[in-house]
Amino acid sequence: MNNNDYCIIMAGGIGSRFWPLSRTKKPKQFLDILGVGKTFIRQTYERFARIIPAQNFLVVTGIDYKGLVLSEIPEIEENQVLCEPMRRNTAPCIAYATYRLLKKNPGAKVVVTPSDHIIFNETKFLEVMLNGLAYAENNDALVTVGLKPTRPETGYGYIQIEKNDAPGCKDTVCKVRTFTEKPDVETAKLFVESGEFYWNSGIFIWSLNSVQKALSAYLPDIADIFSGGMDKYGTSSEESFIFEAYSQCYNISIDYGVMEKAENVFVFAADFGWSDVGTWNSLYLQLDKDGAGNAVKNAKTYLSDVSNSMIDSANRDKLIVIKGLDNYLVVDTDDVLMICPRNNEDVIKQTISDVLADNGVDFI
Amino acid sequence: MNNNDYCIIMAGGIGSRFWPLSRTKKPKQFLDILGVGKTFIRQTYERFARIIPAQNFLVVTGIDYKGLVLSEIPEIEENQVLCEPMRRNTAPCIAYATYRLLKKNPGAKVVVTPSDHIIFNETKFLEVMLNGLAYAENNDALVTVGLKPTRPETGYGYIQIEKNDAPGCKDTVCKVRTFTEKPDVETAKLFVESGEFYWNSGIFIWSLNSVQKALSAYLPDIADIFSGGMDKYGTSSEESFIFEAYSQCYNISIDYGVMEKAENVFVFAADFGWSDVGTWNSLYLQLDKDGAGNAVKNAKTYLSDVSNSMIDSANRDKLIVIKGLDNYLVVDTDDVLMICPRNNEDVIKQTISDVLADNGVDFI
Repeated sequence: MNNNDYCIIMAGGIGSRFWPLSRTKKPKQFLDILGVGKTFIRQTYERFARIIPAQNFLVVTGIDYKGLVLSEIPEIEENQVLCEPMRRNTAPCIAYATYRLLKKNPGAKVVVTPSDHIIFNETKFLEVMLNGLAYAENNDALVTVGLKPTRPETGYGYIQIEKNDAPGCKDTVCKVRTFTEKPDVETAKLFVESGEFYWNSGIFIWSLNSVQKALSAYLPDIADIFSGGMDKYGTSSEESFIFEAYSQCYNISIDYGVMEKAENVFVFAADFGWSDVGTWNSLYLQLDKDGAGNAVKNAKTYLSDVSNSMIDSANRDKLIVIKGLDNYLVVDTDDVLMICPRNNEDVIKQTISDVLADNGVDFI
Repeated sequence: MNNNDYCIIMAGGIGSRFWPLSRTKKPKQFLDILGVGKTFIRQTYERFARIIPAQNFLVVTGIDYKGLVLSEIPEIEENQVLCEPMRRNTAPCIAYATYRLLKKNPGAKVVVTPSDHIIFNETKFLEVMLNGLAYAENNDALVTVGLKPTRPETGYGYIQIEKNDAPGCKDTVCKVRTFTEKPDVETAKLFVESGEFYWNSGIFIWSLNSVQKALSAYLPDIADIFSGGMDKYGTSSEESFIFEAYSQCYNISIDYGVMEKAENVFVFAADFGWSDVGTWNSLYLQLDKDGAGNAVKNAKTYLSDVSNSMIDSANRDKLIVIKGLDNYLVVDTDDVLMICPRNNEDVIKQTISDVLADNGVDFI
């Protein structure tokens, strides 16, 4: 392992799309949504721990989740958990971690990763990470990791590469032409057919040097705020400094604030099997199904005339009896039961949004 | 109040049709299924207590439910609760109570009543009871209480009266021609149109003298078994005697064993508003509905595009979110969730039956 390689895990999300299983008091990354015996964040740590030593991890999370992080990753120290007092999206999050780490090891190269995705081919994945880190060592580049699309997915943003001699980009680093928003299905089909577009995994690889330059160039206000704390990081004054710092930040993603503007942005196009498992329906697609197309997780069920449905329970001893449903999502927890159509993600999203708006903070 | 008037409450049912709310450990009669603030058995007691003194009640129930009965009806003494060691239907139940009471007050007249029905017009109801008891005082008759049908209900048995000069039978006692099984809807329509048929409420009124004679005549084996315990009733030997007695009994209803055979059977035709609330669907029909035809009981809900459905919860603080269901029954308890079509009672019954067959005693 290279002692200059670091991993920054972004674990501050509130996981509202997996409500009612995911709640603000224990969101998605701290749950075993897939039912594999480990939480998402634990899987993330273990994956990277094969190539990054424990002391080289930083986890950025909401201040309320510090205990959950340390509980899930006892291998790291308390001072490796960076607490955000409020949510300001990924740019402030990354800026905080960057300047914090700069103080400790200015020569660091980092992988910045979400904490709640799944990887199917870990060996290939780790190769990509090491290749990316090696590239960052030798190049002033902001690298994002892109996945070759396997279907016209409308739930992901895409990365378009510059045209080059060899069509497409395979297991290597290519210049990014543009980032796109989540497309509609027709546009997604065009993207996939063209061979120039890749799913944006949200994983970044760069040297601290490169990202610091980019923050200064494209988000100077945020760079100033966090560079102003160099003497506070790692001391008892860090917490109050960070509270002030975040109060001054606006909410902005690293993608919009830096990646879409900088000149030295590249994509490492890869193919290691990936899903952000971002929605109930995407979870349904990942899980094994019975003969009638039902995915049942953590539940004891009696199903009769039930098809193409997803059943998930917080209590594996509870019996869930369903007669006569097709294409539904049934999620049962101690204090919320949700029954809604499964494969319409907008409907699920709107339903969750309406429920939470209606019920204030009671069930959030 | 007449000191020779008694009330025998039959409270031994296991309420399987209201599973999963009703369980063998706490069946229907001990629940507030209607959500009115009192259990069925409590409502039954309070109703009759207006005309029967507390010391003149006997409650026959399963041995496991003795504590529940005394808890619901603290006005009665322990020796007023007759415990059945096993279920043998209504004839042995009535025989036990009859001989037990014969020992204490051979001149008694009794109303024998189920413990889990609802009465809408209590004043009229009590008039009928008093009239019936007066009739039993002066006649060697087995009186059953019939309700003028308000619809071609297929869930009830019917009582046909002998043709008489005045068509039909109104607020009086008429001779019974026959009892019928639950009819299909076409037959039910004929019954209602003819004016000769009444819903069988399962309430009986007779003198101990009359019912004893009928038991001896038509169920001599059962009469012998229970008459053989006269020296044991009200002593410490009663329990073991009853265990032996029930072991020898076969399972038979008073309707089939006596009422359908005896010559002196009458029906008091009445009109006091009644329902046996026998099924989830009949409960749905009783409850208030919202503008979309939904009946919600004991539940906090968020319903969107939900219609003609019934939602019932054992936990009123749990939030039940449903999007896009029409004509469903959703019942949520601590250890069972059931979702099935609402208005097909056979489907509900079969589903419950299959689930319980599949799961042994775990959720019964």
